[in-house]
Amino acid sequence: MESLFLLVLGNTEISTVPGISVAGATPELTKLTPIADAEYLFHEKPLTVDVIPVTPEGYPTPAIITKAARELAGFPILVVRGGTYLAPLVPHVHVSNAVGRDFRRGPALPEFGDIIKRAKLLGEELGRLPVKELVIGESTPGGTTTAQAVLWALGYEARTSSASSENPQALKERVITEAFNRLGIAKGDLKDNPLEALRQFGDPMMATLIGLSLGFRGSVVLAGGTQMLAVSALLKALGEDLGRFMVATTKWVVNDPSATFLETAKGIGVITYSADLDFSGSEFPGLRAYEEGYVKEGVGAGGATWLAVKAGYSPEEVSRKVDELYERLMEMKGA
Amino acid sequence: MESLFLLVLGNTEISTVPGISVAGATPELTKLTPIADAEYLFHEKPLTVDVIPVTPEGYPTPAIITKAARELAGFPILVVRGGTYLAPLVPHVHVSNAVGRDFRRGPALPEFGDIIKRAKLLGEELGRLPVKELVIGESTPGGTTTAQAVLWALGYEARTSSASSENPQALKERVITEAFNRLGIAKGDLKDNPLEALRQFGDPMMATLIGLSLGFRGSVVLAGGTQMLAVSALLKALGEDLGRFMVATTKWVVNDPSATFLETAKGIGVITYSADLDFSGSEFPGLRAYEEGYVKEGVGAGGATWLAVKAGYSPEEVSRKVDELYERLMEMKGA
Repeated sequence: MESLFLLVLGNTEISTVPGISVAGATPELTKLTPIADAEYLFHEKPLTVDVIPVTPEGYPTPAIITKAARELAGFPILVVRGGTYLAPLVPHVHVSNAVGRDFRRGPALPEFGDIIKRAKLLGEELGRLPVKELVIGESTPGGTTTAQAVLWALGYEARTSSASSENPQALKERVITEAFNRLGIAKGDLKDNPLEALRQFGDPMMATLIGLSLGFRGSVVLAGGTQMLAVSALLKALGEDLGRFMVATTKWVVNDPSATFLETAKGIGVITYSADLDFSGSEFPGLRAYEEGYVKEGVGAGGATWLAVKAGYSPEEVSRKVDELYERLMEMKGA
Repeated sequence: MESLFLLVLGNTEISTVPGISVAGATPELTKLTPIADAEYLFHEKPLTVDVIPVTPEGYPTPAIITKAARELAGFPILVVRGGTYLAPLVPHVHVSNAVGRDFRRGPALPEFGDIIKRAKLLGEELGRLPVKELVIGESTPGGTTTAQAVLWALGYEARTSSASSENPQALKERVITEAFNRLGIAKGDLKDNPLEALRQFGDPMMATLIGLSLGFRGSVVLAGGTQMLAVSALLKALGEDLGRFMVATTKWVVNDPSATFLETAKGIGVITYSADLDFSGSEFPGLRAYEEGYVKEGVGAGGATWLAVKAGYSPEEVSRKVDELYERLMEMKGA
């Protein structure tokens, strides 16, 4: 296959603000979600923890979609540690161990320069391979809040999506406003200074994506929802032609009435793809919850589905494979 | 290019036995040689230390050959941390941070299983890319001693080469004999138990190479001298068909009268390539020293030259490019 799927892992302290992230069963487990997601892609279950990441309600990580798509289409996966608390116990490209700081108290990512530089080197090397397309997903609890902060700093009236069915928009906005007050800036004040927006409000996943995108000169599919819009906006502000980029997500993000995915994408000028997955027929409540607005996206689920579709599989086949994988997990749990 | 160059980094405590390794100016710097080699491939000079690795006499690391070949042929490079004291400050695939222990006191590599498993996963992923050939080099100070120990355990009457012009064979044999006495074994006693030979006497580079070779099912060029014969011997003992493997090294290893490269390769049944580099015309004594038996090989120098030759460059052109790079280094030193 001439496409390579990268999974970039990031952590930000913002995920520990109560109510911000539901990307794990508890706040402590949420910190481990990126590495557990990565490990699950390569094994029957994660290694660092014994169970796959779930929301506090028990709804499963979108890594299950990515794993299903990969089992069908067989695309290569390379895990990249953009910046996490721990290293995953699977082979991964180490870019940094910097975790994004709480942007209410100070700059989120003083290490942005080193991360970009290293990720760019990696992107350049991948560009020497006979690979035409990078599909880059992410796992970054709290990342929709850092994304919204970056989009606001760059002047977009965006509301980002959330893994919760009740998007904590009021909380997100309060947290971001607090950070803007710290700096004495208003929406759009950093529109000509994207690297400062990244340094003040970003996370290591974003910096890694920027570096990869600058280093690799072929097609790049930014596989994610509103977080990838923040990456697109940063790339545009850095002067990149967005013609070689696409944001691939799921219908659950596109249809999220609490977010502004399509409008913001249009404002940025990046094309989008929406994976038409449907879990409404699943026998498992944990999967049917996706149809009620839980989880929605992550671990490049939409982009992985894009690769499966390009390889000749239908979104229905991906959905059925997800059911199969979920059943396997349930059996292991019961065993 | 359909070939991918991997540089696997390893450390073993054996390098700290006085007189065993000359892969660094001092014993402490020798520990950093693998990461400095990796950093030099991507930058004008290493990042962790300010100068390229040299022997105590000041003769430069073979990374200069690998870098020269890559500047000509442009092949992609992926650094793999098989197991080192520190992480290199360039993007690299993390497999482990296990350093091989002094095999006179106990098993060298209790972690061999995890390393093989992880490296195998990486090899499998690389096998999903449109890559036909892996060329795998290494940087492992002290690695010719672990190699000789493994070859002896597997029953080969081998003498491995050395970066020194005076191969410390007597010292190597004393050290290995001490370890064999610890276990109460003789040459060949582990010929049916290659994993035990690896665990008792190996290093993390070897384990990583084994895993990569088992996971990737295409052609594999083992880019190194007598150390890669140890890897070949392990693979053979594990039941791998060596038909898809080749050991690519330099003429300095092949012509080393203190080692048994060609005889041992023949005994194992693996084909070899020898890069016909010639530094005798260099204006720099540091490079002419290669012709006197210093350094000889490392950092996949022979395999990198193989890639340059396949891309249409002559060994003379690689030699000239090495001269250029060395001149740049001298200018930086002078500046």
